Amino acid sequence: MYEKFWLEAGDAAALIIPGSQAISYFSDVTNLCWFLEPELGGEIRRLHRLVGNAAADDGRHIVVGTGSSQLFQAALFALSTSPEITAVAAGRPIPVVSSVPYYSSYPAATDLLRSSLFRWEGDASSFEDSGGPYIEIVCSPSNPDGSVKAPALSSSHGKRIHDLAYYWPQYTAITTPADHDIMLFTVSKCTGHAGIRLGWALVKDENVAKRMVKYIEVSTIGVSKDSQLRAAKILKAVSSGYELEETAESYKLFHFGWKMMNDRWRRLREAATATGVFSLPVFQPEYCNFKNDSTSPSPAFAWLKCEGGIEDCESFLRENHKILTRSGKHFGAHMKFVRISMLDRDGTFNIFVERLMSIKL
Amino acid sequence: MYEKFWLEAGDAAALIIPGSQAISYFSDVTNLCWFLEPELGGEIRRLHRLVGNAAADDGRHIVVGTGSSQLFQAALFALSTSPEITAVAAGRPIPVVSSVPYYSSYPAATDLLRSSLFRWEGDASSFEDSGGPYIEIVCSPSNPDGSVKAPALSSSHGKRIHDLAYYWPQYTAITTPADHDIMLFTVSKCTGHAGIRLGWALVKDENVAKRMVKYIEVSTIGVSKDSQLRAAKILKAVSSGYELEETAESYKLFHFGWKMMNDRWRRLREAATATGVFSLPVFQPEYCNFKNDSTSPSPAFAWLKCEGGIEDCESFLRENHKILTRSGKHFGAHMKFVRISMLDRDGTFNIFVERLMSIKL
Repeated sequence: MYEKFWLEAGDAAALIIPGSQAISYFSDVTNLCWFLEPELGGEIRRLHRLVGNAAADDGRHIVVGTGSSQLFQAALFALSTSPEITAVAAGRPIPVVSSVPYYSSYPAATDLLRSSLFRWEGDASSFEDSGGPYIEIVCSPSNPDGSVKAPALSSSHGKRIHDLAYYWPQYTAITTPADHDIMLFTVSKCTGHAGIRLGWALVKDENVAKRMVKYIEVSTIGVSKDSQLRAAKILKAVSSGYELEETAESYKLFHFGWKMMNDRWRRLREAATATGVFSLPVFQPEYCNFKNDSTSPSPAFAWLKCEGGIEDCESFLRENHKILTRSGKHFGAHMKFVRISMLDRDGTFNIFVERLMSIKL
Repeated sequence: MYEKFWLEAGDAAALIIPGSQAISYFSDVTNLCWFLEPELGGEIRRLHRLVGNAAADDGRHIVVGTGSSQLFQAALFALSTSPEITAVAAGRPIPVVSSVPYYSSYPAATDLLRSSLFRWEGDASSFEDSGGPYIEIVCSPSNPDGSVKAPALSSSHGKRIHDLAYYWPQYTAITTPADHDIMLFTVSKCTGHAGIRLGWALVKDENVAKRMVKYIEVSTIGVSKDSQLRAAKILKAVSSGYELEETAESYKLFHFGWKMMNDRWRRLREAATATGVFSLPVFQPEYCNFKNDSTSPSPAFAWLKCEGGIEDCESFLRENHKILTRSGKHFGAHMKFVRISMLDRDGTFNIFVERLMSIKL
């Protein structure tokens, strides 16, 4: 979906890397995160200041990662190896939970290597708190259902990872600068560049940040400098699109994105209503401090529910209507639900809406 | 060390990425490794054909990774989750071994998440083979000591990962195209671009390759496209330096590298001999099929031994002579040994040799 925007952006977002650049492993040995390119760190902070979606200054540490997937694992590692947790965990894996529906990659990434440090325990809402340590993942706005999510658990012995991949103005109202202990972001959902594999964490506690850095050091010896330099260029183009004078509307990424998303959601809702077979989440408008306007959420995914007795929505859509979705079962939810990407190219989205419209029970 | 070469190479190795390129997660959905950029796959095969250091065609699969560190872990995952191994492992972690001195990152990366799938067991030569499955890492030429290494174990129930990061003509004689089940390579040691975080594995077995892809999919959802596109450009410049007509000597990377390394090793040996305090490995010349000449190895690391009763070589060099090295203890060896990088910039290498020369007991 964002390709159109970046085609228009032209040279401002293009990167040239000579063969002799970015050779070394190191970016800044004076920084806790020694593999973070200083230019990228600067652009990340600048963008958060512009958008107002997260507190990124005042001693908060930036840890860069190979996408936020790697940072998620780095955070699990950092939290589960903290001295206060290992003291009480007594060698048992720390439970990792998230409230249903949760992002399907959380269980897969948590249990990939069957670690003795942490283990996926499923739905946070049904977690039996025995007084031991645990880690809750809070994804808000939520992947898959787009809702604004609060933590389900609140014990003092629990730790949290806040996945804020979708807390950008094209998807939801920016109501307040988030200010949690560990916050994850990714270029992929902010600007559309998924292939760049670049995410960042904002981390308050220095020792947690250090252990996250340690994880990334051992698992991939840092993060591609090429991706970092390109991400810096792209984020810079986004901020400049707003901050430089006389910038045309077409250079404002979040307004472009919001317009596209809003239009797609309108069309999706019309199609779903026309068929009478599906329902979609209903969102309340909220005031967005970035857009200075009251806006309804337009999430990156549609969490579609099959009505009318269809028990397996994914199979129904795939077998009968050639629509590929991801079943609710992967998200800890009922198979009546499916997750649908709202970020595909125009052509694909148009075909999807057409096929959906044609469905009659 | 390689910076000088790439400054000369100019535009041939420079990459331009427009903002609208490489947006998607996917590179080639028809390939088993769906996140491998086809251009990079082509250049990898072309380079192996040129150098003759590995069999990369005829159905062997290329799995790209965020450096060979990630591929090492992907290979551990793939081997330890194979149906034949899990059937006999009965839930116990598979022992992972490598003969001393081994690369210090193997134990760290193997045990990072305290996996129940595999566990570091140290020196392959002292491994007690109880008839169960195991994984042996064979790094040849060896990091840290530069020797050509054969596997220490040979049971039919064992698996091997061959780390061939240093099997390039600037470091060692290319005697035969390696043709093992799993072979790991990295751009870092081939062309010097460590910051690119890009490695590749050549894998014979389709199912092993699939599980390696699965590991990378879950841990980082693929590999930076920017790094892949740049690596393709750089490897292309290397091959073209040899294959295009009338190319000047200065565009031949491996000859540039070999000349530099050979000169550095000569100076290092002279310095070590002059002091009488140190010894270095002695290598026999071998015929290199790539250079069509008999050549002595000139490894990327010097495995230096303190003689004359110095028990802790690392401390001795650091505290008394301001030379930073890595102690032999990290490599499973005695503290009389240290590993020294031979790939630093000229200025740093010159200071190192000067300081070494000045040492008298």
